[in-house]
Amino acid sequence: MGTKYDTEKFKRKALQVPAAQELILNQVTSGEIETIVSVDSHERIIAEAITAPHPYPAFRRSGMDGYAIVAIDTLNTDDGIVWLKVIDEVPCGTVSSKIISSGTAARIMTGAQVPEGADAVVMLEATEQRNENGVSWVGIKVPARSGQNITPVGFEITEGDTLLRSGHKIGPGELSVLATFGVHQIQVYRKPVVGIFSTGSELLDITDPLEPGKIRNSNTYMLASQIREAGGEPVVMEAIPDDIELARSKVEEALQRYDLVVTTGGVSVGDYDIMGDLVRCGSMDMLFNKVAMRPGSVTTAAVKDRRLLFALSGNPGACYVGFLLFVRPAIRKILGIDKDQLLLPRWTAELGRAYTKVNNFTRFVRGTLKVTDGKVVAYPAQLDESSVMVTIKDSSCLIIIPPELKGAAEGTKVDVILLPGALA
Amino acid sequence: MGTKYDTEKFKRKALQVPAAQELILNQVTSGEIETIVSVDSHERIIAEAITAPHPYPAFRRSGMDGYAIVAIDTLNTDDGIVWLKVIDEVPCGTVSSKIISSGTAARIMTGAQVPEGADAVVMLEATEQRNENGVSWVGIKVPARSGQNITPVGFEITEGDTLLRSGHKIGPGELSVLATFGVHQIQVYRKPVVGIFSTGSELLDITDPLEPGKIRNSNTYMLASQIREAGGEPVVMEAIPDDIELARSKVEEALQRYDLVVTTGGVSVGDYDIMGDLVRCGSMDMLFNKVAMRPGSVTTAAVKDRRLLFALSGNPGACYVGFLLFVRPAIRKILGIDKDQLLLPRWTAELGRAYTKVNNFTRFVRGTLKVTDGKVVAYPAQLDESSVMVTIKDSSCLIIIPPELKGAAEGTKVDVILLPGALA
Repeated sequence: MGTKYDTEKFKRKALQVPAAQELILNQVTSGEIETIVSVDSHERIIAEAITAPHPYPAFRRSGMDGYAIVAIDTLNTDDGIVWLKVIDEVPCGTVSSKIISSGTAARIMTGAQVPEGADAVVMLEATEQRNENGVSWVGIKVPARSGQNITPVGFEITEGDTLLRSGHKIGPGELSVLATFGVHQIQVYRKPVVGIFSTGSELLDITDPLEPGKIRNSNTYMLASQIREAGGEPVVMEAIPDDIELARSKVEEALQRYDLVVTTGGVSVGDYDIMGDLVRCGSMDMLFNKVAMRPGSVTTAAVKDRRLLFALSGNPGACYVGFLLFVRPAIRKILGIDKDQLLLPRWTAELGRAYTKVNNFTRFVRGTLKVTDGKVVAYPAQLDESSVMVTIKDSSCLIIIPPELKGAAEGTKVDVILLPGALA
Repeated sequence: MGTKYDTEKFKRKALQVPAAQELILNQVTSGEIETIVSVDSHERIIAEAITAPHPYPAFRRSGMDGYAIVAIDTLNTDDGIVWLKVIDEVPCGTVSSKIISSGTAARIMTGAQVPEGADAVVMLEATEQRNENGVSWVGIKVPARSGQNITPVGFEITEGDTLLRSGHKIGPGELSVLATFGVHQIQVYRKPVVGIFSTGSELLDITDPLEPGKIRNSNTYMLASQIREAGGEPVVMEAIPDDIELARSKVEEALQRYDLVVTTGGVSVGDYDIMGDLVRCGSMDMLFNKVAMRPGSVTTAAVKDRRLLFALSGNPGACYVGFLLFVRPAIRKILGIDKDQLLLPRWTAELGRAYTKVNNFTRFVRGTLKVTDGKVVAYPAQLDESSVMVTIKDSSCLIIIPPELKGAAEGTKVDVILLPGALA
């Protein structure tokens, strides 16, 4: 009955969550870099700093459809209107060969380059037009100010300015910047590949009919989705039955092949808890095998040749939380993401409903966030046992209840961790 | 000089944003449905309701590694310990053939099926073991309560309960549910395919060297990223030069081929603003061509055979906001997403810095959100002109400044729209 390890199992030293996170992050460095075309870089993490090869705008840009003029010409419009001779027309993308001098104007479009000599653009709606013997005239009805409706060169960006920093995620705004400056190839971090094992002879596949005493393997698919969200590429391996030798060879093979390995199940104090045994007896260095948290206190992490093995609890809720607190930051660090964005965002909120359970460890309670009248309120889920699977999908935050609180009344200020994608 | 349409251009009737959104959403219905394997459904939108084919848990489940016993046996432990004969061992996934009766116990693992007759599980740590002539005995040190550490059948889900509703996005929690109940194929909404055109002879490709007076086409790639985020599939078309006949044929062809068509540029009051002309002269029904908003007041929408054309401003900021307010909800409705999640989340917040610009239309100011001490504070970007491109990437919200505010002091309560993915 495995008495050999029982003593060790009971004597596990519980780390606090931040200490365990630090141990993990210290083992991880940012990963390999690959070059891709920018237009395919949506949601990738940039692995280089991009500086501006030219100012932006690169020319004096008209902010209006109207007329480019010399502002001083319009100062004497007290009698109603000043007429200027229209000597050119400047569509977007063209450059006028004319120089605007006093008494002349050029028709110009929004976004076009303001011709030399002009120092203001008057909007079309504030003008009148007339034609006289084949000559076009524009009437200006309101005095113009020098610089009006002209965006100066370098208004947004000066040549050499940093446009994007390494570790930044590419989205619509970043793609706009890359395209504007003609950066058509960029270096990004390769997505870490994460091998996933479930352990346990009780596990049926998703396609299997139910059998007495057995359950279908759901954590594997949940983890695959979590890994995708974190920016990694999941590889789902066949579930490992409760056999330590088989588990050892499978895990060691996976550690050679993938950037990270995550297992679920087999980390409790029971006799069939093979992942704990594997770490204790194997050739891996254990980082921790107990964390002062609920759910997921048995979460185990070990390292071999700088590759991490995470042995998460088999309880769905504990597996979910363990992934977010420990595996996700590791994936994000391999992905080169900014140091201050490795962990999920943490806010303070007001508890919208009492949480009465007393814990000896810090509890991460699944809940929903609501923002009303500028105030953040967090509501704990009704079923928050670590084994409960159904409320995972309805959660938008984890509410942190420290043990010294001994539960928490409605209205208590609590820290909450935002779940990925929960609010948008 | 296009005078034929000038009068009409100036007379555009400005709709309020909610009215314009309603006009669009009334034209759109949820799209086609396809069947995929559940394990590939990460971030897809489910197009059917899923009900539970069995209760969950499907059997009485042990919540601990320990011993399954009859609770009443332990009531007399005042003298320290009650010894029970261990008659079976129940690993996960197996079913005991024994019935536990008074005086007996079974060794049981977390997650295993509790044998008949037992009504409590005592955790391993609260027991002692001894062996006597080949018979195993367990000593129970603390009285047990009936039901202790046993999760009853159907604790989370009763047979026939609704597990997932149509219109729900698949994430880790949903995949966990699908796998648990053996739902290995599901119906999801097909991703809408969205054709994108830029218009304007001034546009260079991302790979082109810069030319005087010209700019590179950046809105197209920004829109492609926005479409991906919204759940659609972008198709980037070649930019259309300022030629109305060419534009008409290209757009009509695209409307037959794609679920939606988005153009950027060519919607102002200038002479080369071909998208407006196309809608006015063509065979499309215009929904609106002016919205009471900044940036993006010239945003135009039209419909042909129930397919929508969105003609967004060519200004990067206006294009970005116009997409989020009008195109994104349409994509999400085609995707079958819940009615109350078509628009971006809207919160109230406190203005963290004064916004002094006075507007005649409601302004959507790019900004960043911070949550401090449970309070949501929004900071307007320093450069928020609609033509400004660089601050798009740094924004996490749009701050809504209504015209009657005439700017807004620090501390003013404002409505904010959360940008996609901004907070996680």
